[in-house]
Amino acid sequence: MSKILIFGHQSPDTDAITSAISFSYLQNQLGKVTEPVALGEATDETQFALDYFKADNPRVVTSVADEADEVMLVDHNEAQQSVSDIDKVDVLAVVDHHRIANFQTSNPLYYRAEPVGCTNTIILKLFKEHNIEIPENIAGLMLSAIISDTLLLKSPTCTKEDEDAARELADIAGVDLESYGKDLLKAGTNTSDKSADQILNADAKNFPMGDYNVRIGQVNVVDVQEVLDRKDELLSEMDKQSQENSYDLFLLVITNVLESDSVALVFGDDRQKVADAFDKDIIEDTLLLEGVVSRKKQVVPVLTKALS
Amino acid sequence: MSKILIFGHQSPDTDAITSAISFSYLQNQLGKVTEPVALGEATDETQFALDYFKADNPRVVTSVADEADEVMLVDHNEAQQSVSDIDKVDVLAVVDHHRIANFQTSNPLYYRAEPVGCTNTIILKLFKEHNIEIPENIAGLMLSAIISDTLLLKSPTCTKEDEDAARELADIAGVDLESYGKDLLKAGTNTSDKSADQILNADAKNFPMGDYNVRIGQVNVVDVQEVLDRKDELLSEMDKQSQENSYDLFLLVITNVLESDSVALVFGDDRQKVADAFDKDIIEDTLLLEGVVSRKKQVVPVLTKALS
Repeated sequence: MSKILIFGHQSPDTDAITSAISFSYLQNQLGKVTEPVALGEATDETQFALDYFKADNPRVVTSVADEADEVMLVDHNEAQQSVSDIDKVDVLAVVDHHRIANFQTSNPLYYRAEPVGCTNTIILKLFKEHNIEIPENIAGLMLSAIISDTLLLKSPTCTKEDEDAARELADIAGVDLESYGKDLLKAGTNTSDKSADQILNADAKNFPMGDYNVRIGQVNVVDVQEVLDRKDELLSEMDKQSQENSYDLFLLVITNVLESDSVALVFGDDRQKVADAFDKDIIEDTLLLEGVVSRKKQVVPVLTKALS
Repeated sequence: MSKILIFGHQSPDTDAITSAISFSYLQNQLGKVTEPVALGEATDETQFALDYFKADNPRVVTSVADEADEVMLVDHNEAQQSVSDIDKVDVLAVVDHHRIANFQTSNPLYYRAEPVGCTNTIILKLFKEHNIEIPENIAGLMLSAIISDTLLLKSPTCTKEDEDAARELADIAGVDLESYGKDLLKAGTNTSDKSADQILNADAKNFPMGDYNVRIGQVNVVDVQEVLDRKDELLSEMDKQSQENSYDLFLLVITNVLESDSVALVFGDDRQKVADAFDKDIIEDTLLLEGVVSRKKQVVPVLTKALS
C-alpha cells in the first residue's frame, strides 16, 4: 500500500507547509501511513520556523498520482490551488479554513472546515479530540502558522479560538509569543533579494470569479515603498504572466505587517472594476486599502461579489 | 435578525428531518436562533419516529430566501438536492456524511463531514464536544435516523461509530434498540396506499454523472413483489417524470429491509449502461442487486464511475 500524501496549497505559506507536517504527525499517531509534502519551496518565513524548531523541509512534489492513490488536503480545497493531478487520486480528508469551491469527490470523506484564522487552530482541536500529545517542535510549527496567518493575532481573520490556540501552543513550544512572533514575521519581509516573479507568486492563488480568472498575490513587508520602487518591473512581469496563464486580473496585495495596512498593485484590462469594488481610485496603478491585511476576509469576498 | 433555518435534503428521509431537529436544538443551546424546517413531508417511517418521541413535524418550506439570510444544511450539500433558492442565502454550516459536489460558498464556513452511516452520528459527537446534554426525545429521534440509514446496523455504510452511537442514544432515549428498530423500519415499508409518484420520490435524489442526469429513488419493503406487481404503472410514471424533469436515467431501488437485498427498476434510453455498470442483465426491466442496500455506498459510486 502506498503512503497517503498530505499537502497544502500551491505557493505554500507557513500554514500550508506546517499543517501538512502537523496533520501528518497526527494521522501517523492514529495508525495511518502518511508523508507531508509541499507543492512549492518554503518561503523565508517558513524556513525560519522550520530552522527554529529543527524540522525537516517537506519534499516538494508537482504531481502525486504516480506515487500515491490517496491524499489528504490541508489549508485548501479548490482544485486550481491544489496539485496538478488532484483529479487522479482519492481525497480521504480535508482540513481547511477557506470557502469551499471547485471541490468534489465521488465518495464520502472526512471534511473539517471552520471559519477560524488558521488551519493549525483546527488541527490543535483534532489532537485534543484524539487525546494525542503534541511534541514541542510540532507545537512550535503550528504556532508559527497561527502567527503568520493572523499577523500575530492582529488580522480580522483572527478569532478567539486562534488566540487561545496560539497561547497554548507557545506554552508547549516553550517560546514567548510576542518576541518569537515578531522575529518570524520580520523573517518573511525581505524583498530586496527577490525577483519580481518571487514577490508576485510566493503567496499567490487563483480565484475564478464570475467570468474572470483572478490571480491574487500577497507579500508582507515592513516598508511598502521598497516594493513600490520596483513597480514597473512588477507590472511588466504581471503582464507577461497574465498572457501566459490567461489571468484576467492580477493583484499584488502589499501588506505592512507592523502597520496593518495594504497597498494593492492592480493589473488587467478591467482593473477599474477592482477599484469600483473597493470604492477607491487607482492612483499610479495602486489602490490604498486602509486596514486591509487579509486576502481571504477583506479582498476575496469583496471582489467575488463585484465580479460574479 | 431573521432566524437561521436548518434543513436536510429534498424528499427528506428520517435522517434529513431529525438531523435538522437535533442540530437546531444544539445550535439553540449554543446561543444561535434557529428553526428546523423540511423540504418535504415526513415519510411514514419518519412520522412513526416523530409520534413515538412526541416531537412536532418541522414546517415544510419550498424556498427560504424570502424569510432568512442565513441557513445551515444537514445530511446534504449538493445544490440540486437542496432548497430551490440556496444560491440566494449564506450557508453558515454543513453537517453531512455524503460526497461533496456542486457545493460552493463565497465565505469560509463550518463544514463537518465524516464517512459514517448517519448525520446524527456526527451530531452526537458535536453534542459531546460542546458538553450539551441530549434530551430523551431528541436522542430518540437521532437513534431513529441511525436505524433508518443503517437498516438497523446492517447496511455496509454502518461504521463502528454508528453502532456505538445507536447504543448510546438508545440508552438515553430509554428504548430497546432491536425491537424499536424493527417497529420503525416496518412502519416505513407500507406501499399499498401509496401512489406511483410517492413510491418513486419519497426518498429520491438527483445525481449529475458525466453527461447524465440520474434520478435514483429508494423504497424499503418487506415484500419486493408487492412493488413489482405495479411495475407498469411505475414505469409509466418514470417515463412521464423523466420527460418533465429531463432525467436521462431513473432508477427505483426496491430494498428488502429484512433480507438486505435489492431489486432495481430501471428506466431510460441508456439503461443498458446501468446493467453493464453492475455486470448484470436487465430482466423484465429490473436488475437483481444481491446484498445491495445502500444507495450511497453501493449504487452511486458504481454508476458515477461507469457514466463519468
